[in-house]
Amino acid sequence: MCADHAAPGPDYAARRSALRSLLMENEVDALLVTDLVNVRYLTGFTGSNAALLVHAWEMRNAEERTVIGTDGRYRDQVAQQVPDLRAEIARATARRIMELAGEWQVGRVGYESHIVTVDQQRGFAEQKTGLELVPIPGLVEQLRMVKDDYEVAQLRAACAAGDAALATILERGALRPGRTERQVARDLEWAMYEHGAEAIAFETIVAAGPNSAIPHHRPTGAILRAGDFVKIDFGAVIGGYHSDMTRTFVLGAPSDWQREVYALVEESQRAGRNALRPGAEVVDVDAAARSVIEAAGHGRLFSHGLGHGVGLRIHEAPGIMKSGTGTLLSGVAVTVEPGVYFPGRGGVRIEDTLVVREGGPELLTNTSKDLTVVE
Amino acid sequence: MCADHAAPGPDYAARRSALRSLLMENEVDALLVTDLVNVRYLTGFTGSNAALLVHAWEMRNAEERTVIGTDGRYRDQVAQQVPDLRAEIARATARRIMELAGEWQVGRVGYESHIVTVDQQRGFAEQKTGLELVPIPGLVEQLRMVKDDYEVAQLRAACAAGDAALATILERGALRPGRTERQVARDLEWAMYEHGAEAIAFETIVAAGPNSAIPHHRPTGAILRAGDFVKIDFGAVIGGYHSDMTRTFVLGAPSDWQREVYALVEESQRAGRNALRPGAEVVDVDAAARSVIEAAGHGRLFSHGLGHGVGLRIHEAPGIMKSGTGTLLSGVAVTVEPGVYFPGRGGVRIEDTLVVREGGPELLTNTSKDLTVVE
Repeated sequence: MCADHAAPGPDYAARRSALRSLLMENEVDALLVTDLVNVRYLTGFTGSNAALLVHAWEMRNAEERTVIGTDGRYRDQVAQQVPDLRAEIARATARRIMELAGEWQVGRVGYESHIVTVDQQRGFAEQKTGLELVPIPGLVEQLRMVKDDYEVAQLRAACAAGDAALATILERGALRPGRTERQVARDLEWAMYEHGAEAIAFETIVAAGPNSAIPHHRPTGAILRAGDFVKIDFGAVIGGYHSDMTRTFVLGAPSDWQREVYALVEESQRAGRNALRPGAEVVDVDAAARSVIEAAGHGRLFSHGLGHGVGLRIHEAPGIMKSGTGTLLSGVAVTVEPGVYFPGRGGVRIEDTLVVREGGPELLTNTSKDLTVVE
Repeated sequence: MCADHAAPGPDYAARRSALRSLLMENEVDALLVTDLVNVRYLTGFTGSNAALLVHAWEMRNAEERTVIGTDGRYRDQVAQQVPDLRAEIARATARRIMELAGEWQVGRVGYESHIVTVDQQRGFAEQKTGLELVPIPGLVEQLRMVKDDYEVAQLRAACAAGDAALATILERGALRPGRTERQVARDLEWAMYEHGAEAIAFETIVAAGPNSAIPHHRPTGAILRAGDFVKIDFGAVIGGYHSDMTRTFVLGAPSDWQREVYALVEESQRAGRNALRPGAEVVDVDAAARSVIEAAGHGRLFSHGLGHGVGLRIHEAPGIMKSGTGTLLSGVAVTVEPGVYFPGRGGVRIEDTLVVREGGPELLTNTSKDLTVVE
């Protein structure tokens, strides 16, 4: 039996079952899911148009009555990807699903009010289905925070592709004075594909010299020079799951200032990682890393949150930041990415993707975080 | 004077001015713009968080009072990209802009109800700003349909990068039996970057043999074989503008069936292009191309619309399809992309990007549409 067969497949029925318990808590008879990533999470369908009606447990035969809608372009695809659910094919997909819910007299139907636009909502209301429409934001996102074994395996593979790609471009000497930020970014993206990425997780950041002080720098024709910090923030997608990693290098001999900044961020990042445990408040995790930088007098130079959830989207719940809310659970996948940025001079960010676990987080991005001097 | 200086730059003030006339027609005192592409179109700002309040002409000093909001990450960027407008920096960006509108007692404020979610709208309503919130969908999109000279220049450059990339991979022998769909897709994307693309316009489609019958096929490890149709649908982004082109090749000697299908789609595509003129109803343009395929008895095998607008997004208004509405204007950029797909056997699609003009459309994708046999 090969490794592929041994790996657990996604259990969509189990995810829908978990959602049903939340529907009961929220006192609705069904949820209309229109966010495409949420539909994918609950069914495996990856088409660009879909709506899903998930019935609560109170509904008899809740699973049998659950229906996914899409349009004619995806007739074959939905049959193949979602063999276990009834599929409804209609151009006005969500409208048709609401019509069905009306025929079935479902009663109270929740909808994703953080996704559904004002125009869409008005369209549903004007259908006169007799349904009571209840805005319920973020329910599936709440489930998606905790990753199951299949999801962690995908994240692990995506992070491994990122690690391998970075190692590959370093071996090839891609990172040297005279090359441009853009060239390095393209090399890295190409290497991610070589290592099995199905897509690039987000626009790759390669920021050299003074540009490394810009937290979200878009690669330009700027030329890498000896003595530069080079900050690289990138990720791969495998099975729909995103990796996210930042490493900062020095081209040639680092100055004392560079060593100091690097050591500070490294210490902050370690403190952040160590604070990851089930039950921890996200604000406390942020504070654990931030206090290290504040104690060094550079709090104002760490101008963003510490991290974010990562999964089918590159940015997911929870946000690990000063204004964050909630606690971590075992299985939550997050980034830890403090940075210190001296405007016009340079900056350092170090970022890992990890999974919160009892007994300490599982590190998915395994590239060394020691100050790497590229000669 | 070099060519760069001679090229017209984007005139954002003129675009805001055009919007102000629409605001008067819609009887609102200002429009809150929260769609990021619309903000970019009206200001040049490319950050990932923004809200823009554009005052109508009735407001004295309408341009001086127009304000763009973003958060602290983009403080420098907004100052650099939008030097001509007041910038407001706040984490809850749209909320802060609405607060300002309330302080200024703007009166009736339109919002993009096709973009704003139910939760966002409720948030605005709960602010108790004393403003009257008016849902107005699609106003900036209406302006964006007609491209100005700067925009056409960007589209031309993006299409040229696509043409050059396809020529490059053909020269390199990328398209030959034994290679996989995925390899060809990666080669093509790499070549687009080599030819100046800043990004890939959408997930490249390379569909070989039976897969060519799937309109939106995602490249797999499927191997190209002699005798296959290979359908390639791809685009580059330059200056934020997207190119879109499809060509279908035959590997080795084409069969009679392949010649016939190809000739039919070619004729349909020509008819569609010839129907593009200012004042034409989009349904008539669709019909011009579709009737050719229907006359051959294959109407059911052309399962999608004829084309779509293209610009800062890969899919924009107008939709050129059976259920489309409205007429074309000079300067509208669209695709023309009929296809005939025999399930399980193979399919052909031929697609160009063009600009509607008096005296006939301007073709932006200049790769030959003759049946190209790749030996």
